[in-house]
Amino acid sequence: MIALKINANRLWESLDKINQFGRNPRYPEKGNTRLSLTIEDLKARQYLINLMKESGLKVKVDPVGNICGRLEGLNSQAPVIMTGSHIDTVVQGGRFDGTLGVLGAIEAVRTIHELGITPLHPIEVVSFTDEEGTRFGTGYIGSRAISGQLDDSVLKLKDDQGISLYEALKLAGYQPDLYKDCMRKKSEIKSFVELHIEQGKVLEENDLSVGIVTHIQGPVWLQVSLTGSADHAGATPMYMRKDASLAMAEMMLAVEKAAIEHSGVATVGKLEVLPGGVNIIPGHAQFSVDLRHIDKQKRTEMLKSFKKDMETISRERNVDALLEIKKEVDPAECSTTLIEIISNVCKQSQISTMTLQCGAGHDSLMMNDRTETAMIFVRSQKGISHNPLEYSSLEDCAKGTEVLMNTLLKLAQ
Amino acid sequence: MIALKINANRLWESLDKINQFGRNPRYPEKGNTRLSLTIEDLKARQYLINLMKESGLKVKVDPVGNICGRLEGLNSQAPVIMTGSHIDTVVQGGRFDGTLGVLGAIEAVRTIHELGITPLHPIEVVSFTDEEGTRFGTGYIGSRAISGQLDDSVLKLKDDQGISLYEALKLAGYQPDLYKDCMRKKSEIKSFVELHIEQGKVLEENDLSVGIVTHIQGPVWLQVSLTGSADHAGATPMYMRKDASLAMAEMMLAVEKAAIEHSGVATVGKLEVLPGGVNIIPGHAQFSVDLRHIDKQKRTEMLKSFKKDMETISRERNVDALLEIKKEVDPAECSTTLIEIISNVCKQSQISTMTLQCGAGHDSLMMNDRTETAMIFVRSQKGISHNPLEYSSLEDCAKGTEVLMNTLLKLAQ
Repeated sequence: MIALKINANRLWESLDKINQFGRNPRYPEKGNTRLSLTIEDLKARQYLINLMKESGLKVKVDPVGNICGRLEGLNSQAPVIMTGSHIDTVVQGGRFDGTLGVLGAIEAVRTIHELGITPLHPIEVVSFTDEEGTRFGTGYIGSRAISGQLDDSVLKLKDDQGISLYEALKLAGYQPDLYKDCMRKKSEIKSFVELHIEQGKVLEENDLSVGIVTHIQGPVWLQVSLTGSADHAGATPMYMRKDASLAMAEMMLAVEKAAIEHSGVATVGKLEVLPGGVNIIPGHAQFSVDLRHIDKQKRTEMLKSFKKDMETISRERNVDALLEIKKEVDPAECSTTLIEIISNVCKQSQISTMTLQCGAGHDSLMMNDRTETAMIFVRSQKGISHNPLEYSSLEDCAKGTEVLMNTLLKLAQ
Repeated sequence: MIALKINANRLWESLDKINQFGRNPRYPEKGNTRLSLTIEDLKARQYLINLMKESGLKVKVDPVGNICGRLEGLNSQAPVIMTGSHIDTVVQGGRFDGTLGVLGAIEAVRTIHELGITPLHPIEVVSFTDEEGTRFGTGYIGSRAISGQLDDSVLKLKDDQGISLYEALKLAGYQPDLYKDCMRKKSEIKSFVELHIEQGKVLEENDLSVGIVTHIQGPVWLQVSLTGSADHAGATPMYMRKDASLAMAEMMLAVEKAAIEHSGVATVGKLEVLPGGVNIIPGHAQFSVDLRHIDKQKRTEMLKSFKKDMETISRERNVDALLEIKKEVDPAECSTTLIEIISNVCKQSQISTMTLQCGAGHDSLMMNDRTETAMIFVRSQKGISHNPLEYSSLEDCAKGTEVLMNTLLKLAQ
């Protein structure tokens, strides 16, 4: 088997083009904000569809807006080899998270097509709707739909403007009523391979361009709402206060403590206090918690430990606390068969590699329910991600894409 | 001297009428939001001007929008007896804070006028522009202008939409360029008396309708801005984080500690973290601090103690901290002469009373620079203020207004 090469400059150019959507050229330091189903996302989707067609793929968009570009196989009835990721970003996000996995997959399949190779199995590149969950408070919308894990309650979730996911899908021209039709049977998919930036520092510390994932952390997302009493900041003595913001402050530190004690990670990324005047004691506060662990049991212990602290703080500060679980995704193990195949592909291409764990959640977590799954990681500069400074070099992106292409070819033959 | 009576129902009705501006009838539980120079405030100002004219007062509006209603004295050259307060509110505020002091003063002077009494000294009712400071981050705009304590830097302050105080005054039809003309000479004002709700529980606990203030706390307002690093919530281990929100949480608790240790009060009422995604470690955070003490020296110690903690937290968490002082008002002592006059008025009206300290800041703090100052407090139900549940009974409001009227008569005779 010969290790084939992709067109690195063409890949780089496509990354540049798609990232014109969601970037304000006057404020480049604010990065890319391309929340799912916003006008920026819809424009990027149109670019993607055109690029897929130009690359020789047959495009289908499913009822929740997953964009699937298919390279037909010699046996069109054979289970497909699936690859892909997402193009939505967080607020002020970077240019590579998700996007590389979609554009890299297109570049890989385009190269196969241009070389005149027709594999036995069809290959499908999927751009999944709303992986990040920034807009509606829960992510993996598209990969949940394909893996049969979406339900009505998710469609009812609303964004900050009160628009539901259902409405946003309708406005974008999709058919949320038919979301159950998105599901693909287990027998229809042979393997799923996702290319993604690492978003951590392990590859950089090991001086490697590419890594192979063994486990994926599953996140739990919580929302905590606190109700105290909004009183005058001057006339209310400290002992009489029911200050929701101070209860929140203590709970935020309890989140950190739970993560450290259980060797996981946990983050309070979004918060609000009301009414929000300098001279008013906040009567309400609300914050998000993102808890992750590679081990589900330990993650449950982390959550328990936080809940216990939350209840104590709520009692001591005379502030009511309501905890809701907004998302809960099991951690996943990647397929050892696929890991071995990817390792061999790397050897053939003379690309040094290593196996590593994955801290972030990915569409692969959902696809893992349907089929054997693998992730190819590309080195992230300084490990920075979900940040305008997120960066992976052209060379590293190209190497990751080559590994993906040769893996797809191996699986599809 | 006979103790005169005001028209309690008329006062109550005027309170009701002015509070139609800034209240959403569909969400009465959200209280009144009448931020200075917003459309709600401008409508309330028009109501006020009409009411003053109807009450026999001659109305002048100064370059920063202070509305002055004057009852002429036998000697129009004699220094004026001034009374008043403000009609702007905080976000989701109550119906009495400030408003009672303006409408009570109008009712008091209207009664004097209707009784055909012409005092020796002119009496002026002033509705001061922007006491609360909610919109532009610093308050007492009108009373600073009248007492010669306003400066250009304040006019440049911007609201959350980026509109400056200067622009807002212009848009409302005032003349901010002429703000120096608002200043009244010390010799022009004989006394200043402000009627206000207590916003605390001391009168309620002592079962009294009316109290007389001896000292007024002066607030210091700070803004703290924190810069860490926005990274991925899943892929960044706890020890590598520069989480601005956790630094903020610790600093919020340090604010509380400083207040308790120095027997003052301190509040974090407004805060924000950026970029604000569930799965992004906040790289930026910003919060307000409102520190108050009756004793300026002790307030300085409180501030020092917080600053020290802030610096330690900033260092330990690897998050840069910038502290700005947005407002600093000295605490004030009320005039013992005026306190005695008000006490005697209460005795004559057979209204039991007591002296007490004042936790909130008021326009009186500024006017104290110009003339002898006093404050008459009216009982607040449960001490609740800056909250939709803020309440003082018709009877208590009427008693406070009567005390104000008889005090004004005594001073103006």
